[in-house]
Amino acid sequence: MTNFVPTPWIDRFAARTERMTSSAIRELLKLTADPEVISFAGGLPAPDVFPLEQIDAACRKVIAEQGKAALQYSTTEGYLPLRELLCRHMERYGIKVTPANVLVTGGSQQALDLIGKLMINPGDRVLTEAPTYLGALQAWSGYETRYLTVPLDDDGLRTDELEAQLRSGPKYLYILPNFHNPGGTTMTVERRHRLVELASHYGTPILEDDPYGQLRFEGNHLPTLVEIDAQYHGATTSEHPFRGGVMYLGTLSKTLAPGLRIGWVVAPEAVIQKLVQIKQGADLHTATFTQMVAYEAATGGFLDRHVKRIREVYGERRNVMLAALEKHLPPGCHWTRPQGGLFLWVTLPEGANTDKLIRDALEQKVAFVPGSSFYPLGGGQRSMRLNFSYCNPEKIEEGVRRLGNVVARHLAPKAVAVP
Amino acid sequence: MTNFVPTPWIDRFAARTERMTSSAIRELLKLTADPEVISFAGGLPAPDVFPLEQIDAACRKVIAEQGKAALQYSTTEGYLPLRELLCRHMERYGIKVTPANVLVTGGSQQALDLIGKLMINPGDRVLTEAPTYLGALQAWSGYETRYLTVPLDDDGLRTDELEAQLRSGPKYLYILPNFHNPGGTTMTVERRHRLVELASHYGTPILEDDPYGQLRFEGNHLPTLVEIDAQYHGATTSEHPFRGGVMYLGTLSKTLAPGLRIGWVVAPEAVIQKLVQIKQGADLHTATFTQMVAYEAATGGFLDRHVKRIREVYGERRNVMLAALEKHLPPGCHWTRPQGGLFLWVTLPEGANTDKLIRDALEQKVAFVPGSSFYPLGGGQRSMRLNFSYCNPEKIEEGVRRLGNVVARHLAPKAVAVP
Repeated sequence: MTNFVPTPWIDRFAARTERMTSSAIRELLKLTADPEVISFAGGLPAPDVFPLEQIDAACRKVIAEQGKAALQYSTTEGYLPLRELLCRHMERYGIKVTPANVLVTGGSQQALDLIGKLMINPGDRVLTEAPTYLGALQAWSGYETRYLTVPLDDDGLRTDELEAQLRSGPKYLYILPNFHNPGGTTMTVERRHRLVELASHYGTPILEDDPYGQLRFEGNHLPTLVEIDAQYHGATTSEHPFRGGVMYLGTLSKTLAPGLRIGWVVAPEAVIQKLVQIKQGADLHTATFTQMVAYEAATGGFLDRHVKRIREVYGERRNVMLAALEKHLPPGCHWTRPQGGLFLWVTLPEGANTDKLIRDALEQKVAFVPGSSFYPLGGGQRSMRLNFSYCNPEKIEEGVRRLGNVVARHLAPKAVAVP
Repeated sequence: MTNFVPTPWIDRFAARTERMTSSAIRELLKLTADPEVISFAGGLPAPDVFPLEQIDAACRKVIAEQGKAALQYSTTEGYLPLRELLCRHMERYGIKVTPANVLVTGGSQQALDLIGKLMINPGDRVLTEAPTYLGALQAWSGYETRYLTVPLDDDGLRTDELEAQLRSGPKYLYILPNFHNPGGTTMTVERRHRLVELASHYGTPILEDDPYGQLRFEGNHLPTLVEIDAQYHGATTSEHPFRGGVMYLGTLSKTLAPGLRIGWVVAPEAVIQKLVQIKQGADLHTATFTQMVAYEAATGGFLDRHVKRIREVYGERRNVMLAALEKHLPPGCHWTRPQGGLFLWVTLPEGANTDKLIRDALEQKVAFVPGSSFYPLGGGQRSMRLNFSYCNPEKIEEGVRRLGNVVARHLAPKAVAVP
């Protein structure tokens, strides 16, 4: 009997990782573990605003009052009081749905994966913005997804370029209308209506990802696509349940704490039922304990009060970053001015290459994510994503100063070596 | 512009749920929500032994000492002190690996899903025992898996029938050697060696699922397949890392609490790295907070002490169930006598059908899972799975009494209706 040579079996046997790209963000985050690096690369919320006391009290209450239930298996759909709370919370932002339209997931990242698994057959096309959220591309790469894209401008997705792509028959359209990651842009109301109208006409479901929608520092809340879509199908009541063409993703990662891993999907009940089946196979259910703790922490109006506090902190940091960019970046650079969220998007003049620039930046102890990471079909080499939520104002000022130096050197005409 | 008719889009667009079967267990659990039903159907641990005080203290410590880290995003691989603790814990059971061989997952259900996603191309065959764990079939059904099976007997997987199936080229072999779910059987040492030898010969990776291995009430711990496999490849040291042909699944769901959703995979480092990539896309990482709480609760020897307590409680309940079966089941019934775990397996005489019996049983307020649920290629109609961990001894006695009546009526010759 021959002995089994173990090492190479995974390369012979793995079905899918050849088609999976490693996360550029994760690789970068490894380099930014150096405490001297000022990192604008991650998408981390400010730990200074984590509601530690509230979570502490919530844990005690859950264990004292419902300890056995909190530690036991529970239903795949999610903890009902939490789903009810999320419905009440969303209603204040114009989204009228019932708990039967809500599935609790392991962050919205899991929702992206479950939806990909539900919807995508190998070779199917998904229509995204360009740039788009990197985590969505990671979630779907294992399903052999092909992409169609529509570019962004400062008013969000270019709806004038949408129809040609919809005609190509994408399985669904993935979009982040508010405080785009990575673009920092917000889609205008007019474009939102046009988008829903076109998607309805072509029968293309919309996947609306809205992790930052509540984190608006200036301007007024705009109706979500799920709300606009619902207007096409009449009011939602108990007799007329939500049954539109939009799936909507929310998360507590940016408004309470990412370490609890609580996100959710809103969708017509028939869609939720299928996603529940898939989630059963994927992880049975999201942790009972964290769902109950999140509910107890968020209830009684705390979530709304806490969101106001986060808006103040992030709004100040955005202001600091905008001022620092104005001061330190060389002429010819453009950046978005986000009205909320965690990110802004810098575009350098013709000829710049942020895939190269990032090495110099890391040497100078400042980090960002190169724009090319966010383009499923290529592009973005002149751009970079900057996060302004994680670092405090002093670090933002210093980091942008370093970045300005690196960019200026990168753009300066190279001295030609005389042979 | 035509109006978009929303309701049927999911049926037109869904790629995968046609091929997914709903969970028989989950559907049954809905019926068993009736508090009068004595349910042997679920796989729930006894809530009476959940370590509430320990979890309470762990939460306080985590929030007080590492609150900001606990609520923040963290690495996909999992919390390093937890992975180190799991390595120390597994070493006491003969498994010598390093944290680089361990990925923390959302229960072992997520590990099953990630491995399926890594390994299975549409149409690939997976070799399982018959019967096998239903959740594994659910996890892999979305990947268009085909199955090969090898029957169980009271000594575990029939290794004399294994080679013919290995020759058919399965992608991997999935097996539960200890206190089988649903079979309640434990594989003998001789068969374990034979299995590893054959799998090595055919170059077939083994996926060893061991959720209950520590919950042994009687007899001696037997070496895991991962340990036996390691003997084929020399000792594991820092110079010779673990690199065998076995992936091993563990969980804290049965030894600490399922509501935390903490499981893990052990595998060669190259496999772990690929699984990390897939988990990034699936949910970024398992909740930082529950990982830290699990670590704080389990550390300092608590996990070992607590496992002893669980063994006592479950051992008593098994004894009560065995005695009640002896007393209440009619002649001709056979059942396994598990040396540990949560389940035993009852087989009724020729002609019985537990798919039909379950309806009568639910009317008589007792529940089980029909055997056919656990057979990927059909079979098991004469069998049922009974859980003995969840109900207290009084309920076990009463539930088996009800079950005995239902079985006796089911087996009695039917009165022929005169037309």
